Amino acid sequence: MGERKAAIVIGAGDATGGAIARRFAKGGYVACVTRRSEEKLVPLLDQIRSEGGEARGFGSDARKEEEVADLFATVEREVGPVEVMVFNIGANVNFPILEMTERVYRKVWEMAAYSGFLTGREAARVMVPRGKGTIIFTGATASLRGGSGFSAFAGAKFALRALAQSMARELGPKGIHVAHPIIDGAIDTAFIRDTFPERYKLKEEDGILNPDHIAEMYWQLHMQPRDAWTHELDLRPWMETF
Amino acid sequence: MGERKAAIVIGAGDATGGAIARRFAKGGYVACVTRRSEEKLVPLLDQIRSEGGEARGFGSDARKEEEVADLFATVEREVGPVEVMVFNIGANVNFPILEMTERVYRKVWEMAAYSGFLTGREAARVMVPRGKGTIIFTGATASLRGGSGFSAFAGAKFALRALAQSMARELGPKGIHVAHPIIDGAIDTAFIRDTFPERYKLKEEDGILNPDHIAEMYWQLHMQPRDAWTHELDLRPWMETF
Amino acid sequence: MGERKAAIVIGAGDATGGAIARRFAKGGYVACVTRRSEEKLVPLLDQIRSEGGEARGFGSDARKEEEVADLFATVEREVGPVEVMVFNIGANVNFPILEMTERVYRKVWEMAAYSGFLTGREAARVMVPRGKGTIIFTGATASLRGGSGFSAFAGAKFALRALAQSMARELGPKGIHVAHPIIDGAIDTAFIRDTFPERYKLKEEDGILNPDHIAEMYWQLHMQPRDAWTHELDLRPWMETF
Amino acid sequence: MGERKAAIVIGAGDATGGAIARRFAKGGYVACVTRRSEEKLVPLLDQIRSEGGEARGFGSDARKEEEVADLFATVEREVGPVEVMVFNIGANVNFPILEMTERVYRKVWEMAAYSGFLTGREAARVMVPRGKGTIIFTGATASLRGGSGFSAFAGAKFALRALAQSMARELGPKGIHVAHPIIDGAIDTAFIRDTFPERYKLKEEDGILNPDHIAEMYWQLHMQPRDAWTHELDLRPWMETF
Repeated sequence: MGERKAAIVIGAGDATGGAIARRFAKGGYVACVTRRSEEKLVPLLDQIRSEGGEARGFGSDARKEEEVADLFATVEREVGPVEVMVFNIGANVNFPILEMTERVYRKVWEMAAYSGFLTGREAARVMVPRGKGTIIFTGATASLRGGSGFSAFAGAKFALRALAQSMARELGPKGIHVAHPIIDGAIDTAFIRDTFPERYKLKEEDGILNPDHIAEMYWQLHMQPRDAWTHELDLRPWMETF
Repeated sequence: MGERKAAIVIGAGDATGGAIARRFAKGGYVACVTRRSEEKLVPLLDQIRSEGGEARGFGSDARKEEEVADLFATVEREVGPVEVMVFNIGANVNFPILEMTERVYRKVWEMAAYSGFLTGREAARVMVPRGKGTIIFTGATASLRGGSGFSAFAGAKFALRALAQSMARELGPKGIHVAHPIIDGAIDTAFIRDTFPERYKLKEEDGILNPDHIAEMYWQLHMQPRDAWTHELDLRPWMETF
Repeated sequence: MGERKAAIVIGAGDATGGAIARRFAKGGYVACVTRRSEEKLVPLLDQIRSEGGEARGFGSDARKEEEVADLFATVEREVGPVEVMVFNIGANVNFPILEMTERVYRKVWEMAAYSGFLTGREAARVMVPRGKGTIIFTGATASLRGGSGFSAFAGAKFALRALAQSMARELGPKGIHVAHPIIDGAIDTAFIRDTFPERYKLKEEDGILNPDHIAEMYWQLHMQPRDAWTHELDLRPWMETF
Repeated sequence: MGERKAAIVIGAGDATGGAIARRFAKGGYVACVTRRSEEKLVPLLDQIRSEGGEARGFGSDARKEEEVADLFATVEREVGPVEVMVFNIGANVNFPILEMTERVYRKVWEMAAYSGFLTGREAARVMVPRGKGTIIFTGATASLRGGSGFSAFAGAKFALRALAQSMARELGPKGIHVAHPIIDGAIDTAFIRDTFPERYKLKEEDGILNPDHIAEMYWQLHMQPRDAWTHELDLRPWMETF
């Protein structure tokens, strides 16, 4: 069992997280996927296994320090060394400032930034002694620009970007590759399909992001030799305005 | 009493907040200054009054939604319309990622970002119906760059910058001027004097920021006619590396 | 005559350059204004003098090294020390990449970037030995973003911003204040009035920039004490989208 | 002959350009490499051929409009459609502003920015009618920051970045992928080996960039499906300070 290596994907509940897990499983890693509800992970686990990969599902709330510590300890003990951690929780909401409640503002930060800190720190804990590992935080357009109505979401995504930069500068020289891809555009998910049907039609002409292609870039980031690491990049459909 | 106009300075416990309060008092505003401990505000209130200005002190925790609502209600009722709100709470800490506790990470965000949201939203509530007002959030070098060890502080300052941008884009067209000055350099404070005596010596050659000069720029931002508003600017001593 | 101090405004042919010249004249400087055609400066010189200020006009092509050297030598000799230099030449054009000629691409750079280098260097030559002075390069939205069709204009404005940053980092510690205000929005000029009449109507509700207000900020930048200098700031009407 | 596809590498005189040419040759493209002196390309052509690839060398000055037009016409006629164009000319110089001559300032811009415009436009001319193609402009640290002494080099690199952004926004929706990788760190070249021997020692611990790894990323950018294109990314050794 010692030969096995783990790739933890925090927030594997959406199409992107699922695709990333599948890509790392295909690359020989045990995909250790998390979301709050363990049973909802079953379809993803089935899919990975049907594709010949190994996977483990964990019901885990990334906002709870103890659950995060448990998660990493369990994976290290039962699966193998965590070589990759992908943090993929978002919480995209938009409210005028006067309608933004303190509850939503706080919750968005807890989901999209604070959880990134807890899981990123835990990943650093197991990776630093080994002098290697890859930590990827998923960014968004709101990581770079605070648009109208985005006080909470951009606040959290800006904070996550600060975390990624800070960890990259501290941990790079310790052998840990910290990256922050910025996804700029609609992704091919059930949410987009159901909520923005007009936009979803762009899929026919490659106008929305295929999660598998996002996942492929995450894999390539992990594969980069250490003399040529990428910290930040954007991913965007060819027809997207920016 | 209806003629009086209020300038609220959240976090008037340091030299910068104090200087800003004094500048707005000098400009004819009632300086309404806050920090958690009301009695610690006495020296500042005395100073403003001795300079011929009007001032009110409030013990108020900017991290508590109700206290913030009370503060603005009291000022509007007892002093006059809030025309200016300056958010000036920082929480500069530096820890390696493995030594950063969840308690510190959370607290820094609550002090330097979440409080900004609560007070900024409350200011917007009283200003938007009147179609005018100025909201200034104090930024720092860590607002732009996540340096090693700054996961918490840069996280909070990035989030505050996102808030400032988001509010500027939403509230500008409603007549509210939202600005985000970035202070890049040591300020002439007791903290710098006692902690970094070598650096403090630069004061003799204007190598550290004079709080009165920061305050003057805040005043000028408030004075800008609405056809030519500044959202972001930097302030830095002439000899500072950047 | 030795008491007099000069403020050179390169590119005083538009409303902004004219307003800046008038502001520095009002502040006690001899406004030394330039454009390629000296006679076209007569109305501006008349206006400054009628407002009680002193002014000198120079026909000078900022793209010609010798003319720039002559200009500074003449001003230093006949007027007094150059304490301020404002570079205010733009060249806003928009062409699809396939229609952009090499002639236009080169000319835009010569006008908006290369001229900035020649005049900025010349200003540095006279200011560095005295250890003081202010150099301001006017920026635009295109200084920060290369929009579609703006290969030439954004190319030149990006280059000018690089120049401003490089000179600020080198010359700040030598006592020279180098600033780069970014004007984001339409300015109240004859060009906007005649070309974009719909947009010009926004003037009634302060939707376009008043050149005098831009000039006031330039003056304030020059007045900043050296412990609290601004290198970059934006100026934008309250209703402008950004 | 119609089956063959061309990848033009402008500025193949250094290790990076050579590695990029070899990578595209390995991927099945005819590597069409240029530098001012054709005979100096012989070793690179020999190497590509010995690795089983196809290559053509062209003595061509990228600062001359007609030579650039000839180059593309010749490649399209004699080799095949240009599917990739990599612009890789730099001109890294550092001089204090007072020592920067107008000749150097202009020349650096002509080499590192104006040439990028001429070759980028020519690539667009042949690619737009076909609705596909990849154009990559090599960036550097100086693309993002105007450091002391870098008025010319940063000026040119900023301008090149503006060009890349402008072309990406205009040509993306026409099917052309425009990318701007930013190389941040020393590259394993003869220049670094001979000029900075101390730094070169870092090679032993992967502290300087391997040109082959840069080239691999360029290849991956070209391979990206159009629903998930990257416009900008950084490449940096793990131990590099940033």
